[in-house]
Amino acid sequence: MESSTFVLFGATGDLAKRKIYPALYNLFADGKLSGPLSVIGLGRRELSNETFQAQVLDSLRTFSRRPVKESAGLQNFLRAFEYSVLDVGRPEDYTKLLGHVRRREQQLNIPGNRMFYLSVGPEFFGPIAGNIQASGLGDTTGWKRLIIEKPFGRDLQSARELNNSLNAAFKEEEIFRIDHFLGKPMVQNLEVLKYSNPVLRALWQNRYIANVQITAAETVGVEERAGYYDKAGALRDMFQNHMLQLLMMMAMQLPKGSTPEDVRSKKRHVIQSLRPLLKEEVTQHVVRGQYGAGEIKGNKVPAYTAEPGIEASSQNETYIAARLWIDDPMWNEVPFYIRTGKRMKEKSTRIVIEFKEPFNDFHNKNRGEVPLDPNLLVIEIGPGEGISLQLNTKNPRQHGQLEPVSIKHDSANSDLPEAYENLIYDALLGDATFFAHWDEVELSWQWVQPIIEATEEGTLPLHTYASGSYGPDAADELLGEDHWWLDEVTPAEQSKQNSFRGFEADVIRPGA
Amino acid sequence: MESSTFVLFGATGDLAKRKIYPALYNLFADGKLSGPLSVIGLGRRELSNETFQAQVLDSLRTFSRRPVKESAGLQNFLRAFEYSVLDVGRPEDYTKLLGHVRRREQQLNIPGNRMFYLSVGPEFFGPIAGNIQASGLGDTTGWKRLIIEKPFGRDLQSARELNNSLNAAFKEEEIFRIDHFLGKPMVQNLEVLKYSNPVLRALWQNRYIANVQITAAETVGVEERAGYYDKAGALRDMFQNHMLQLLMMMAMQLPKGSTPEDVRSKKRHVIQSLRPLLKEEVTQHVVRGQYGAGEIKGNKVPAYTAEPGIEASSQNETYIAARLWIDDPMWNEVPFYIRTGKRMKEKSTRIVIEFKEPFNDFHNKNRGEVPLDPNLLVIEIGPGEGISLQLNTKNPRQHGQLEPVSIKHDSANSDLPEAYENLIYDALLGDATFFAHWDEVELSWQWVQPIIEATEEGTLPLHTYASGSYGPDAADELLGEDHWWLDEVTPAEQSKQNSFRGFEADVIRPGA
Repeated sequence: MESSTFVLFGATGDLAKRKIYPALYNLFADGKLSGPLSVIGLGRRELSNETFQAQVLDSLRTFSRRPVKESAGLQNFLRAFEYSVLDVGRPEDYTKLLGHVRRREQQLNIPGNRMFYLSVGPEFFGPIAGNIQASGLGDTTGWKRLIIEKPFGRDLQSARELNNSLNAAFKEEEIFRIDHFLGKPMVQNLEVLKYSNPVLRALWQNRYIANVQITAAETVGVEERAGYYDKAGALRDMFQNHMLQLLMMMAMQLPKGSTPEDVRSKKRHVIQSLRPLLKEEVTQHVVRGQYGAGEIKGNKVPAYTAEPGIEASSQNETYIAARLWIDDPMWNEVPFYIRTGKRMKEKSTRIVIEFKEPFNDFHNKNRGEVPLDPNLLVIEIGPGEGISLQLNTKNPRQHGQLEPVSIKHDSANSDLPEAYENLIYDALLGDATFFAHWDEVELSWQWVQPIIEATEEGTLPLHTYASGSYGPDAADELLGEDHWWLDEVTPAEQSKQNSFRGFEADVIRPGA
Repeated sequence: MESSTFVLFGATGDLAKRKIYPALYNLFADGKLSGPLSVIGLGRRELSNETFQAQVLDSLRTFSRRPVKESAGLQNFLRAFEYSVLDVGRPEDYTKLLGHVRRREQQLNIPGNRMFYLSVGPEFFGPIAGNIQASGLGDTTGWKRLIIEKPFGRDLQSARELNNSLNAAFKEEEIFRIDHFLGKPMVQNLEVLKYSNPVLRALWQNRYIANVQITAAETVGVEERAGYYDKAGALRDMFQNHMLQLLMMMAMQLPKGSTPEDVRSKKRHVIQSLRPLLKEEVTQHVVRGQYGAGEIKGNKVPAYTAEPGIEASSQNETYIAARLWIDDPMWNEVPFYIRTGKRMKEKSTRIVIEFKEPFNDFHNKNRGEVPLDPNLLVIEIGPGEGISLQLNTKNPRQHGQLEPVSIKHDSANSDLPEAYENLIYDALLGDATFFAHWDEVELSWQWVQPIIEATEEGTLPLHTYASGSYGPDAADELLGEDHWWLDEVTPAEQSKQNSFRGFEADVIRPGA
């Protein structure tokens, strides 16, 4: 990795404190940041370098996954942080910033590699990009790169405009769009699971797979984000970006010896192959829901429309489920079921691959004709991570009754790198594998556009679901004869039940 | 299940006390023995019914997996046991026994179903069968069945003679030969695993399977069985029966809706398809070993030839490994590796299915060209039971380095039915699925006959291995480029290591 200057817009903001500083610190502590480090934080308020460094230290103490100990290393880390005041709309501030960047480059002997991280609202992306270009900050002998955060627009048109404004200063290959779901270790593991395990590769065929289910369930409600969320809804906040990115990561087929460019091309292929929704058919494939009052883990919680900052008449969705088809021979006749919602029973992000049914007429003298459970491969992405495979076995205590058990691997150690560590590290390396590329963003907006329009035209009903449930009944009906596999009894719980099931009663039947 | 009389030869013997009485008791406690129970114990010594019942109770207290509590049910159970003195060679004792059996049948209103359990040495099988026939014990309006224990002969010729002597009184379908490995729950699970799980069925092809390994490793030495064992060796004690039975259970392919008769036919097909050994080629496919001195779990143990009752010059094998081929399209080019031994490092009976290699050129920026570990399906039969699947995943703490993890299901509850419970229950039901049929026994002896002859002629070398090792080096060489998968690091241990591997050092590299 070449050393570089890390220019952070929004240096006093919440994301910087919660995610970016801890990520940089943990990368530094791991020895992953080579060469001298230079971070220039930018914000509207006047701050001395010392105050800025104290704020950074404070954020590490609060949010770093690794304990922060007083040491010479820590002091070196903090000294890498300097601050410049900047009003995003004032060209002269960028000229001053350029001077600051150059001074540090000379002081620390850093080549002209510049990472611009825009931890600010999307309305500032265009002005900042324009000023980076106009001020000469972008003219450098090394590389320049841009990291931005969602939202990337609120529909197809606005996303295109936003992207055009960035393209004035940055080429597509210089833009790293963070979708933090792509930074999660288990998501980054998906390609490896498929391609380094012959047993999974053999099974990765529509001949064996019945359906694929991607769930991101939250237990929290709208929290303090009413202003943003009531305009975005689950469709823009989760579905168009995170959920469709998970679908692409799950469904793509990588060639041997694949490169980041292959990944990009294969993800584009998946999203391009999604069977388009017709506006008049949206209701058959998509279910919108909004949480009503209910109970989460024994605590009563209010309806969405009773939340602070939300109008009682809000028709915004807090839940969305969809059935999608990928028009590709590999996924022929394999539906993808996607759902995400707030105030659901359980916090869980997971992918479940349901395999086609075992033959039911398997001889078992004690079973009668009870249908067998399907085999499931469950990839848990968060909050814990793990892989489990649900198989049918005989219950040795029931003399041969068949029942499912789950074989499971948990990452028992919770000290995993955060998504932001992985992503910032990759961006510094220039590896775009786990970022959202423009064509994916554009095609995702294109796919969801009929949902946006049907919602705006009021033709897509809004179902209410109780807080603490798994969403509206309509989402179950959407699946026809299939079932969602994040339900009352998850495979992991079932396995635990098996373990505890034993000989209960010491009943002796009367004999001779 | 119809009620029956259980006639036990060898009622004061070790097997009866350790296995048979506890098995009957646990079946009784489970309510699996329908109708009144009548057990007639036979032995050479004079015993009153009361003394016999006290011995049975004593054996339950010592060996039953389930606690024995004083209750009316327990008293009913014990009252079912009566005793007759019998000298196996005295015809008049059988006439007396017939009277006893009939009296109990009338008293308890039991139909003339008679189970004869021969828990005695094989030299008595012929005389007992002859006398059962001659005395009229075998002439009954109900069914009669015979349960016998290994050894079934000590070579092909003696096994045939033994079987002929039984056939004078019992038809093949009336003979239940116990191979207690077939009673183990996980062995009985093998057919279900393969046929009720589409993911495993899809993988059960020589296209995907590299090899199959069957290991039965013991840590104990010859113990108190020197007289028997030094004449039998690992070949007769374990290989010809248990190991080849495991091979048949593993390799057979059951049709849909299979019956016990199908199981028998498919097992015969496997053993018939074993590529015959030529005597002059035995050394290329078979390794014999004898344990030397060594250490088991920190305790020094003597060499086999220094054990009490063993001659210092003994050339008996305590270990045997073999490579076998099944000449059937399903298993074309899939070697089966079998090994069993005493004084090995670890006590474990397991089947490992090694899948063909993942492609090595999978793109991974940090891996270089380290070969990937193969996928393994590990079926643990004993002492614990479980199923695990070893997959390759990214280590999220090593930014993408590939390493194997094991996903695993353990039967956490150790209160599983014993092999003898399963087998006695099946024999009482008349279900021969999990018994060794004559054709399997005969064909197994036929397959091992060249090994016996090469051993007797001194052309098959005897390798020494240290106690506490995994056997002689020659057994590793036998596998060529393959590896035995019960080694220093088993998948389960590896998985544990992964869980504990975390951030070790708080090293901070000097920065700016």
